[in-house]
Amino acid sequence: MKTALIGAGNVATHIALALYGSGVDIVQVYSRDIAHSAAIAHKVGALPIDDMAKIDDSIDVFLFAVKDDAITELLKRAGKKDVLMIHTAGSVSMDVFKEYTGNYGALYPLQTFSKSKAVNFAEIPVFIEASNDEAERQIEELARKLSPEIHFVNSEQRKKIHLAAVFACNFTNFLYDISAEIVAEAGLPFDVLKPLIAETADKIKTLSPREAQTGPAVRGDKQTMNAHLELLKERPDLQRLYTELSDGIKLGIGTPSSVF
Amino acid sequence: MKTALIGAGNVATHIALALYGSGVDIVQVYSRDIAHSAAIAHKVGALPIDDMAKIDDSIDVFLFAVKDDAITELLKRAGKKDVLMIHTAGSVSMDVFKEYTGNYGALYPLQTFSKSKAVNFAEIPVFIEASNDEAERQIEELARKLSPEIHFVNSEQRKKIHLAAVFACNFTNFLYDISAEIVAEAGLPFDVLKPLIAETADKIKTLSPREAQTGPAVRGDKQTMNAHLELLKERPDLQRLYTELSDGIKLGIGTPSSVF
Repeated sequence: MKTALIGAGNVATHIALALYGSGVDIVQVYSRDIAHSAAIAHKVGALPIDDMAKIDDSIDVFLFAVKDDAITELLKRAGKKDVLMIHTAGSVSMDVFKEYTGNYGALYPLQTFSKSKAVNFAEIPVFIEASNDEAERQIEELARKLSPEIHFVNSEQRKKIHLAAVFACNFTNFLYDISAEIVAEAGLPFDVLKPLIAETADKIKTLSPREAQTGPAVRGDKQTMNAHLELLKERPDLQRLYTELSDGIKLGIGTPSSVF
Repeated sequence: MKTALIGAGNVATHIALALYGSGVDIVQVYSRDIAHSAAIAHKVGALPIDDMAKIDDSIDVFLFAVKDDAITELLKRAGKKDVLMIHTAGSVSMDVFKEYTGNYGALYPLQTFSKSKAVNFAEIPVFIEASNDEAERQIEELARKLSPEIHFVNSEQRKKIHLAAVFACNFTNFLYDISAEIVAEAGLPFDVLKPLIAETADKIKTLSPREAQTGPAVRGDKQTMNAHLELLKERPDLQRLYTELSDGIKLGIGTPSSVF
């Protein structure tokens, strides 16, 4: 399958390198900025392009790894094609492709990709969905070049997985950012928090998060919580966040609950 | 130094085992529930007690690892003693001991302790503070039995470190808990999130959290954020949390900021 990679950001870069390493034939790489497409194309033996209309007729697969709202614009420019179209987004319905091809789907790798940090795709769950059996077979084949862990899900499931990932990754990282600022304020390097952060993430490999919960909120230690709110008195936004999260811990722990 | 350990919870258990492993002489273990003190005492060759008045006169060090608000009550029962008194709490001033002895301080190990999960103390930063040089020397000696990474801080710094730990650990774990519920709602096991959680924690070993931030909020992807809020429409508490955290990411990223 001759593949065109559409996109040149973090996700596109990591996927391109992993597919190339598994022998997938990436023929062209698109970015609206030719310098960006060239940067990836150079690494995977592909041709850089900066216009969707330049995608070669020999291409079998369009693999989109771009911002969610860019997909539609790029499809308009490319037009209808008798190819397999796949996107890699968590929250975009696969039906975004419906007007452009009969064979389409999604291939969503559940991971956080930063430019300067390599990831091991073999440990990443990949969620796939397809418009028909043949498309599913082809998407699964491509997905297996990335990871042995494939899950077949529908668009609604994929959106929920993406939402869960925002809490488990993006919001968690923001809490790290806040904690980094607080230790800096105490005159200490962020390094002092790293063993704690590592252990917090490690614990949930063997305990459920509910079982692993520690701290003043789950203990009901109001004295400490009030002292913390006092420390944050110049930052009403962080006070609100502290209260919201502590209330959630108090309500959530030990009671059956459902998100939806 | 003959040591009495006051407390039998998670922190007390982990500290007792680590000190015992380093050859510290733990003579007595106190808990108001003798079954709890016995459970630890049995492991470290100590005598279990359930009354602070039963602490032996030969004891040199009282090491408190109890709930913050329990310390004062236990001190009242024990009375004034010519011993070194130490607590292990993040948010309690060391002056809690002032009326009871001249030699006192704090020894705060920055880690999250769960009963059924072993921790490697050698990687844990320990923050110490003392009422005088001799107390500091003794507390440092004890701390070095636990970890090579000792930091000398005052009570205000220690409280800030504890606050940072609540964000980096307790609140982070609660986000894991929320994400576990969301994937369960999608009919998937929590396991699918584990590589993402591990990578999120791993990234900040080499990137600052600010550099490591990914997701819809930092991309300014309003379409996805609105879709997520729609998914959470039955849970106004999680909608508030989602908005608060996303706003924080948008404001925080790329701008110099200060917590206080």
